[in-house]
Amino acid sequence: MTGVTRTLARYLVASRYADIPAPVRHEAARALLNGVGCAIGSSRHETVEIALAALREFSGPPQAGILGRCERLDILNAALINGISMHVLDFDDTHARAVHPSAPVLPAILALAEWRHISGAELVHAFVLGVEAECRIGLSVFPEHYNVGWHITGTAGVFGAAAAAGKLLGLNEQQMTWALGIAATQSAGLREMFGSMCKSFHPGRAAQNGLTAALLAARNFTSSERAIEAPRGFAHVLSTKFDPAVITEGLGARFELSSNMYKPYACGLVVHAAIDGCIQLRKEHDIDPATIERIELRVCPVVLELTAKTTPQTGLEGKFSVYHAAAVAVIFGAAGEAQFSDACVLDPQVIALRDRVTAVPDDKLRKLEAHVSIRLKDGRTHFRHVEHALGSLQRPMSDADLEAKFRGLTDGILGSKQIDELIRLSWSVAELPDAGAIARAAQVGKRD
Amino acid sequence: MTGVTRTLARYLVASRYADIPAPVRHEAARALLNGVGCAIGSSRHETVEIALAALREFSGPPQAGILGRCERLDILNAALINGISMHVLDFDDTHARAVHPSAPVLPAILALAEWRHISGAELVHAFVLGVEAECRIGLSVFPEHYNVGWHITGTAGVFGAAAAAGKLLGLNEQQMTWALGIAATQSAGLREMFGSMCKSFHPGRAAQNGLTAALLAARNFTSSERAIEAPRGFAHVLSTKFDPAVITEGLGARFELSSNMYKPYACGLVVHAAIDGCIQLRKEHDIDPATIERIELRVCPVVLELTAKTTPQTGLEGKFSVYHAAAVAVIFGAAGEAQFSDACVLDPQVIALRDRVTAVPDDKLRKLEAHVSIRLKDGRTHFRHVEHALGSLQRPMSDADLEAKFRGLTDGILGSKQIDELIRLSWSVAELPDAGAIARAAQVGKRD
Repeated sequence: MTGVTRTLARYLVASRYADIPAPVRHEAARALLNGVGCAIGSSRHETVEIALAALREFSGPPQAGILGRCERLDILNAALINGISMHVLDFDDTHARAVHPSAPVLPAILALAEWRHISGAELVHAFVLGVEAECRIGLSVFPEHYNVGWHITGTAGVFGAAAAAGKLLGLNEQQMTWALGIAATQSAGLREMFGSMCKSFHPGRAAQNGLTAALLAARNFTSSERAIEAPRGFAHVLSTKFDPAVITEGLGARFELSSNMYKPYACGLVVHAAIDGCIQLRKEHDIDPATIERIELRVCPVVLELTAKTTPQTGLEGKFSVYHAAAVAVIFGAAGEAQFSDACVLDPQVIALRDRVTAVPDDKLRKLEAHVSIRLKDGRTHFRHVEHALGSLQRPMSDADLEAKFRGLTDGILGSKQIDELIRLSWSVAELPDAGAIARAAQVGKRD
Repeated sequence: MTGVTRTLARYLVASRYADIPAPVRHEAARALLNGVGCAIGSSRHETVEIALAALREFSGPPQAGILGRCERLDILNAALINGISMHVLDFDDTHARAVHPSAPVLPAILALAEWRHISGAELVHAFVLGVEAECRIGLSVFPEHYNVGWHITGTAGVFGAAAAAGKLLGLNEQQMTWALGIAATQSAGLREMFGSMCKSFHPGRAAQNGLTAALLAARNFTSSERAIEAPRGFAHVLSTKFDPAVITEGLGARFELSSNMYKPYACGLVVHAAIDGCIQLRKEHDIDPATIERIELRVCPVVLELTAKTTPQTGLEGKFSVYHAAAVAVIFGAAGEAQFSDACVLDPQVIALRDRVTAVPDDKLRKLEAHVSIRLKDGRTHFRHVEHALGSLQRPMSDADLEAKFRGLTDGILGSKQIDELIRLSWSVAELPDAGAIARAAQVGKRD
């Protein structure tokens, strides 16, 4: 019987662009816009600056651009740095059940697209397949694999990068099998690193290592041909659970990218429903914060386990304060990085409203559900029940929402014409004759 | 209480060269000669050629040399390629209980020594500390970690490279703690890959990734500070056993490098005792193969489980034939790569003698023990009981043996003057003002 590694490789090699349903192709464009926006928005983040400073003097020729910056590195180093910046704010996409799909895959193929001539349709196709590989492999060992301490975005992401890059490099079935094997033997990343710079290093390294795997396999560098399922292979060594059918069932018929979610707010998902309710009420009733007597939240208990900081002192602490989140949502109608800056957390107007936010747990509520009441000094009360926060599968961000998020992330880094151009390129990615145009359009400075 | 990660980091940072006992320093020189010889001897191996062909166009500036070749790559890529070549023949050193110590560590620091000005004493010191870190961390989770399927030379080796490179980069205690953490979160390599090109990719990647960890930490790229011992850290995620005392007990007093072993013969250890006996008898009695009636071996049962191929057809198969090994040992007085070539395996003289070798198992014998009888046509019989094969801790290869091995590996790749020079540089490494001289002297072609 053919093993799952080879079965998956066979599918990846045989898949044609025409086989990808239109909604899945469009989801790829949405993920592209979101991922590139996150990378540009984080392009000056300390984690990115340090990694770039430490490694750039070892980089090869200027083959691929660092998104949102002027530097150009070899494709492997570019994949690493862009993978870090795409994930570092935790503002990137999330598969409904496992990994952050884009950060390990997109940087690898965006770099390849600058180095080789690759059409937009090829890029979309490779991205869809990469996400398919990483999600299915990750889910085949989930949740035991994650629970024991593996950061699945790193450990499964490397397969996604290898599959996507391997598709663009035109690997045959044997080579694709090896590429998955070379990826498997580099699979790494510990959850112990959460809270340190290494967290975003994981998808960066996954992108770089998966790309390396595909490049080696293209030259017939051999590996095991049963790297996922063998007794000493990925699944059994890195997990106590393995369900191989998850990898192969419905391949080509059902696409994991259809379960992709995008975050409208720059903080943990648990706070999103409360933010969402506040923004909705502000919009509908044009509320002046000065007129507010009290904001009352009823939330899933986990919200208060994770985000009950009443007096945050830094932007990062602000992300762990549902009180701060509700206050900025009402005052600014937004909860982007700007609302989780140190300055915003210490803003007297924000503090004044934050101190009037209360929250009570309700174990009948789901994680992305909340009840929000805004009681005004004049005695009126506005109420909203958020059943599914914006960004959930039940209430996805619209294309316009994603554009607005992109503008918020890139404003001040790119000029407005460049932002418009990148949005246009992303929506029309499948028609681009040269997919390298995207990464080139996302660079600043010397290239302008 | 201070965790083991920080305790180890503190030791690595505080250690002074004067603290390293003279015999341990000399062992470093022996490992250097052996490791560099292995890398040069394998510098044209298919695995090396493919990796180099696949990755060189992404390399940065020519900062460090590929041993035995003319190419110069950036230090990270050089560490990868030299790590592959040092291990690919499985002819490199072996710690008595766990990893192959040199292949993940030496390539990282040899590359650094070409890029920065580093004295020979600093190189020796860093090497000793790197071996200490990888062996202790590996042994703290051994054997469960290995048994479940991890290739410990890769998974522990990355710590060795990080520690050694971190020492040369002058990391402080905090940075060294982070370097060990960045290493931990890249720890990877599956035993499933044995038999494929990925096996030697593991120490290569460990060298490259450990060096990366040190370079990042030097710029204050943060990681967990309890990467080894935390509940979601290296030991608990990658093993069911963890004995932290193995990492810290006797640090600075007992050195793992003292338990290092070198292989005199280019095949698995189990065949070494038989080869050893044959070579001894040939030397003492000046035996003409044509006069031999029969060679009778009595060996540990595992020898026949692993190496009972009676009619090998390729050089690689020859390594799994104790009959072939005994025949070449008597005919050539050697069992190097030349004796495990395709040509040698098909040599009629070798076949003729091989067919007169018999072997019987004896479960009273240890793995590195054998009884060898050579019965001559004239009726005489020469007998030798090998209690401990050459290369074991009980009967280590002499410095002269290591020199002869080095000459055998490098002959035909380097000129004889260059070989002499490298031997001289290796023995005097601790006195070299510039340790970069070693890697430079190990290059050929364009640099001559």
